[in-house]
Amino acid sequence: MKFVIIGGDAAGMSAASRAKRHMPEMDVIVLEKSDDVSYSACGMPYNIADADRDIDDLVVRKADVFRGKQGIDLFTGYPVDSIDTKNRIVSGTIRPSGEPFRFFYDRLLIATGGRPKIPDLPGFNLPGVMALKSLQDGRRIKNHIKTSNVGKAVILGMGYVGLEMAEALRKRGIAVEMVKPGPDLLPWMPREMAAVVKQELGDNQVDLHLGRKITRIEKTGEDLHVVCQDRTLKAGMVLVAVGIDPNSELASGAGIKTGVGNAIAVDRKLQTSDEAVYAAGDCADAYHVVTGQKTWIPLALRANRAGWAVADNVCGKSVELDSVAGTAVFQVFNLEVARTGLSLKESNHYGFEPVSVTIKTRSRAHAHPGAETIWVHLIGDRRTGRLLGAQMVGREGVAHRINAAAVALHAKMSVASFSQTDLAYAPPFGPVWDPLLTAANQLLKKMS
Amino acid sequence: MKFVIIGGDAAGMSAASRAKRHMPEMDVIVLEKSDDVSYSACGMPYNIADADRDIDDLVVRKADVFRGKQGIDLFTGYPVDSIDTKNRIVSGTIRPSGEPFRFFYDRLLIATGGRPKIPDLPGFNLPGVMALKSLQDGRRIKNHIKTSNVGKAVILGMGYVGLEMAEALRKRGIAVEMVKPGPDLLPWMPREMAAVVKQELGDNQVDLHLGRKITRIEKTGEDLHVVCQDRTLKAGMVLVAVGIDPNSELASGAGIKTGVGNAIAVDRKLQTSDEAVYAAGDCADAYHVVTGQKTWIPLALRANRAGWAVADNVCGKSVELDSVAGTAVFQVFNLEVARTGLSLKESNHYGFEPVSVTIKTRSRAHAHPGAETIWVHLIGDRRTGRLLGAQMVGREGVAHRINAAAVALHAKMSVASFSQTDLAYAPPFGPVWDPLLTAANQLLKKMS
Repeated sequence: MKFVIIGGDAAGMSAASRAKRHMPEMDVIVLEKSDDVSYSACGMPYNIADADRDIDDLVVRKADVFRGKQGIDLFTGYPVDSIDTKNRIVSGTIRPSGEPFRFFYDRLLIATGGRPKIPDLPGFNLPGVMALKSLQDGRRIKNHIKTSNVGKAVILGMGYVGLEMAEALRKRGIAVEMVKPGPDLLPWMPREMAAVVKQELGDNQVDLHLGRKITRIEKTGEDLHVVCQDRTLKAGMVLVAVGIDPNSELASGAGIKTGVGNAIAVDRKLQTSDEAVYAAGDCADAYHVVTGQKTWIPLALRANRAGWAVADNVCGKSVELDSVAGTAVFQVFNLEVARTGLSLKESNHYGFEPVSVTIKTRSRAHAHPGAETIWVHLIGDRRTGRLLGAQMVGREGVAHRINAAAVALHAKMSVASFSQTDLAYAPPFGPVWDPLLTAANQLLKKMS
Repeated sequence: MKFVIIGGDAAGMSAASRAKRHMPEMDVIVLEKSDDVSYSACGMPYNIADADRDIDDLVVRKADVFRGKQGIDLFTGYPVDSIDTKNRIVSGTIRPSGEPFRFFYDRLLIATGGRPKIPDLPGFNLPGVMALKSLQDGRRIKNHIKTSNVGKAVILGMGYVGLEMAEALRKRGIAVEMVKPGPDLLPWMPREMAAVVKQELGDNQVDLHLGRKITRIEKTGEDLHVVCQDRTLKAGMVLVAVGIDPNSELASGAGIKTGVGNAIAVDRKLQTSDEAVYAAGDCADAYHVVTGQKTWIPLALRANRAGWAVADNVCGKSVELDSVAGTAVFQVFNLEVARTGLSLKESNHYGFEPVSVTIKTRSRAHAHPGAETIWVHLIGDRRTGRLLGAQMVGREGVAHRINAAAVALHAKMSVASFSQTDLAYAPPFGPVWDPLLTAANQLLKKMS
């Protein structure tokens, strides 16, 4: 049995390792287009923040370990450019030699991940205009900061990669301006809570330009000029962080179905429209635990989990993955920002009858020193009583608190049941009524 | 309608305030034996840790606010000593005047709380031998430390009050020795995890004497001598923290049924065996979410919640409370220790077929600086697949993480379902696979 995997990152290497563990006699072949496998992509902004750290610190396991001890046939510099699903053959051209390669498969996993969206505008291919997705991107950024002695950076986009990079670059002493065409920072969040994040960015000398559309990037001498409709921003570096697209073209070129967000459509077993082909990671879609419908939320945990599930299924264990809740957390300087489930806008979009509250409470008990403000936004469905989503912002106690709401979404709990859960209390860690419970109590009143 | 409440702490004042909010025209009468109402009892160790803070900082709302703005008839210094359920009268003697009082009620709430267990041994009534439950206890302890210039304290018991007080006293520069007759620190926890707590106590110069039975306390000059079977410990102060008992004698004296741990037996509406009488807080029992059976776990959140539910029911809203999971967290110097649900021993006791794992992982992502070790203990039932309990120890990321497991217990989730929940990930806050998920994955393997 030949199990071929396209892509040697989170999903691909998780699948490869697990398949070999289950069935050491299986041929597990990984084809990775770059030279890097198995690294902590999400750790890149934190690594970039520190000039003294090597980007290769983020490598979790070296290629040689996979090849040696684990017995995986791992090929780097092997970009696949076509899949012949009829004859079960993948093929491409070895880099840099230019020699062709072909592999036959019994089972194929497409784990090609995603790539940063790059606007189709003039100047986005100039040197110094960069995106952050692969370890090679991280290397390039660190190198550019060092060699070009970057004093100012412009970040296009204000999603979590942009925000994490803003912090990283400020830590390197680089001035940061962020630009986006939309009028709102974190539009999925109540304005009151987004204002807290905005304030934190301002307090850390990150300038935000909201509602500014970019028309092109130009270069004069060492300087890049980000030309917006009504203003031009000068910088030594431009980071493009306006979202990612799934690498699904290889799949769709082979006649495999794609769906929401152009991601590869998979069932709960991660099987694509071709039963010998699986897809996992940022290139594949998933079911959403609240809507029950397909969604595309590329996140690291899902990629790892899906990689394992594919390995299990390929090895005949028949595993079905549960849906995703879209739980996410990110750090913005000293703030923790977290969400799970649907936003208010998404709740409306999916036909729920959402009711929401936004509360402000304390991160520690009454009279306990060092308390910070915590904001909680909770959404329930008036029709069914179900909890639909939660969001939090605060300086402490946010990152892990969101998980209680995430589990409640998986359990399809009502706001009433959630409000009765027995959550931990001690004065250093929160008020008697956990902020989530206070929010649930208030939401319940509003729903009744 | 006359709603009489015995006890002016968490459950009692929560009920009083909420009843008045629902029905401003109702007569709400609170009879509190002490002079203190509505204070953060759990905050006392942290207040005692700081010589400069007034213990009255812990008062959440002053008696005058309840009396004035809220219109509650609050009587302090009114210890009730009997309940006549037939004629619906409570009576007692006003302190310090000695005058008798009698109140008729339509609905009665017994919220008499608990009291520290005091061993029936010689010397436990000596000055300097103290327990911590009421605000007055806290006042006494702070005063004793100050006036007697305590250099060393012996704490009897190693539960969370004892441990929190050990930290508080060390912060005051007081040497601390802790004694208990049993051989194990935190016997409900795996030995490997308890050893981490033990180490932390040792690192903070808290000496533990496990397996030492106390026979008496003696006083010579200014010194107290805690006499154990094989050793005598000298101290300027002895803190008795060997657990609490429910104050249920008033209820049982009136023919009201008590149950597990001698707590007052209540149904989901918090009604006692007498339909006009409710009980809430540390004096009342509850259903356990895992066993479905009665339990007695006196904790602050439940007291507040039960107080509200009684008010709702008295006001005709018919509210049933969900069960408790026994979720708890406490701080031991720089450690966070948390639990929810059943321990392994309890799981066996209640007839489950428990399987458990204890794992050690990191509090931050691979290569993220500042990571600490996190220990997770997870228990599942082999027969039904259900999650039964979780425990955690670590320097960060424990206190709120436990809540994800608590919600899973409320949802009666299987370990398999829990292992598939979509929990938050970002490098500063944990590994890609949350420690709870890693534990669930390993437990699942062991259960299958």
